[in-house]
Amino acid sequence: MLAIVAESSDRLTWREVPDVSPGRGEVLIRVNTAGVNRADLLQAAGNYPPPPGASNILGLEVSGVIESLGEGVTGWTVGQDVCALLAGGGYAEYVSAPAGQVMPVPLGVSLPDAAALPEVACTVWSNIAMTAHLTDGELLLIHGGASGIGTHAIQVATALGNRVAVTAGSRAKLDLCRELGAEVLISYRDEDFVACVNNATDGRGADVILDIMGAAYLDRNLDALAPDGRMTIIGMQGGIKAEFNIAKAVAKRLHVIGTSLRGRPIDGPHGKRAIVEEVVASVWPLIADGRVRPIIGARFPIADAAEAHRVLTAGETFGKVLLTVNE
Amino acid sequence: MLAIVAESSDRLTWREVPDVSPGRGEVLIRVNTAGVNRADLLQAAGNYPPPPGASNILGLEVSGVIESLGEGVTGWTVGQDVCALLAGGGYAEYVSAPAGQVMPVPLGVSLPDAAALPEVACTVWSNIAMTAHLTDGELLLIHGGASGIGTHAIQVATALGNRVAVTAGSRAKLDLCRELGAEVLISYRDEDFVACVNNATDGRGADVILDIMGAAYLDRNLDALAPDGRMTIIGMQGGIKAEFNIAKAVAKRLHVIGTSLRGRPIDGPHGKRAIVEEVVASVWPLIADGRVRPIIGARFPIADAAEAHRVLTAGETFGKVLLTVNE
Repeated sequence: MLAIVAESSDRLTWREVPDVSPGRGEVLIRVNTAGVNRADLLQAAGNYPPPPGASNILGLEVSGVIESLGEGVTGWTVGQDVCALLAGGGYAEYVSAPAGQVMPVPLGVSLPDAAALPEVACTVWSNIAMTAHLTDGELLLIHGGASGIGTHAIQVATALGNRVAVTAGSRAKLDLCRELGAEVLISYRDEDFVACVNNATDGRGADVILDIMGAAYLDRNLDALAPDGRMTIIGMQGGIKAEFNIAKAVAKRLHVIGTSLRGRPIDGPHGKRAIVEEVVASVWPLIADGRVRPIIGARFPIADAAEAHRVLTAGETFGKVLLTVNE
Repeated sequence: MLAIVAESSDRLTWREVPDVSPGRGEVLIRVNTAGVNRADLLQAAGNYPPPPGASNILGLEVSGVIESLGEGVTGWTVGQDVCALLAGGGYAEYVSAPAGQVMPVPLGVSLPDAAALPEVACTVWSNIAMTAHLTDGELLLIHGGASGIGTHAIQVATALGNRVAVTAGSRAKLDLCRELGAEVLISYRDEDFVACVNNATDGRGADVILDIMGAAYLDRNLDALAPDGRMTIIGMQGGIKAEFNIAKAVAKRLHVIGTSLRGRPIDGPHGKRAIVEEVVASVWPLIADGRVRPIIGARFPIADAAEAHRVLTAGETFGKVLLTVNE
């Protein structure tokens, strides 16, 4: 089969690699479209080795058609349109995924667009609902509101009756966030997000923060949180190590939570299967009734994966970047 | 009435102060015994001002007899033996407490001994059950296992079917912890708690850590936690600010949670009333059936409060230190 081979961060070559076949409990998917994630950029640059047992091929999510079923798989049929969360291998003609990480394409979403959903839906739901327990009427602050994660989180949080504040780097990106439901729009280049969140909440702060900046924002995030606030850190674009003022956390009873999706086991209470099941039960209906939709900023043929990576790295787009494999 | 007036950290004088009366929704308690907490030591030294609206008098918990009821109080009767969680005012002949913070004396516990329970029971339950969600069979690491909090946490966690590791500073204290049910005994003066916990768990680590050290232990606590582990920080005896390696938290999906009991509101999902209700429902039965008992290391007459503070500060005791007000 054909797949992207990453020779370096800017040499992503579409070429012949060994075929994959579904192992026990796995589903083989003929890939229609693959989603691009920041973890793919890091992995292509050699900074994010795949977890043990995962494919060396890039690609953490796809949409496609079930080609065959491994031993012991029930509940799926050959020829069915699906999308899937992967530990790797999505930048390819075929990929094998554990059945517990496969999802039906939500009603009303095209097969190509469905590739924009698995990572953002599973990341957002596992963070804001399953980990941070965002409750109806609370304020969620999303850093990088115009990103794939951000655009999805805005829609899900507002659909569930919460208020949303976002940071983003341009007026155009903030406008998109507003159209999706964000109420507090913060230009991080020239505004202080702590002050903006406090102004919008009578000084109370954000109940939940979805953070991608890590070290650079840690202390200000503590300042921006309301009493009993929770922040989940899913990215470290602003560095790994920061001074942590524990007294601030104790005084306001704050939860500082690191999370990631890729390294989770398949099974168990914190596993991918449990997350996928909740997403299909809780998020897919919001998509089917039109309250949440995939936000796609750019599409490239799979052979142009390097250009897709460059565009995402440069922050020139919004929402998801997709790679078309089989039209 | 008589009460302790703190003129400095070592001048605690038992003398006449204005009487207290129960406000709306409050219960006036004639104090039998008051518990000593580290927050009292800090407050006496001028480092921990009481929260707005709270008494300036030291003392965060008492046992005693209901003397009178404020307006609107139902469910309590004059003459009833109770214990109570306070925002302050316990080092006195009388104290007024919100009805939602008053608890019956558990079956089988004497009125004086009941003063050893409110702070430890509410702190431990709100941390390990309501915040960290310690689940049957998980390993809890308790720093300061021989403290009031520690000796109670060991008993509650083991009664609920969990494994317990403790750190303490002497063989005698570790022996006490073992008698109470702790399985992994770590002498922090000459052993590395990260290595000890890993040895006891096949390298997996602790599922939950109850921490009192703050900055000094932050990084090692991250190393000692298992994947999906949770740590609650309830004290900062090792300092307030530390470098936080966010990558460790993200890789293992760790929860770092600051908590405190005193500053919580009375009502609401994170309030004292909700904690007290759960403690009476879940911990009092463990005490009534003998699986959990108050651990009292020292008792002093209330006039000797300064000596009680000195003993607790010096780490010369274990479990709770109590002050006898009315015998």
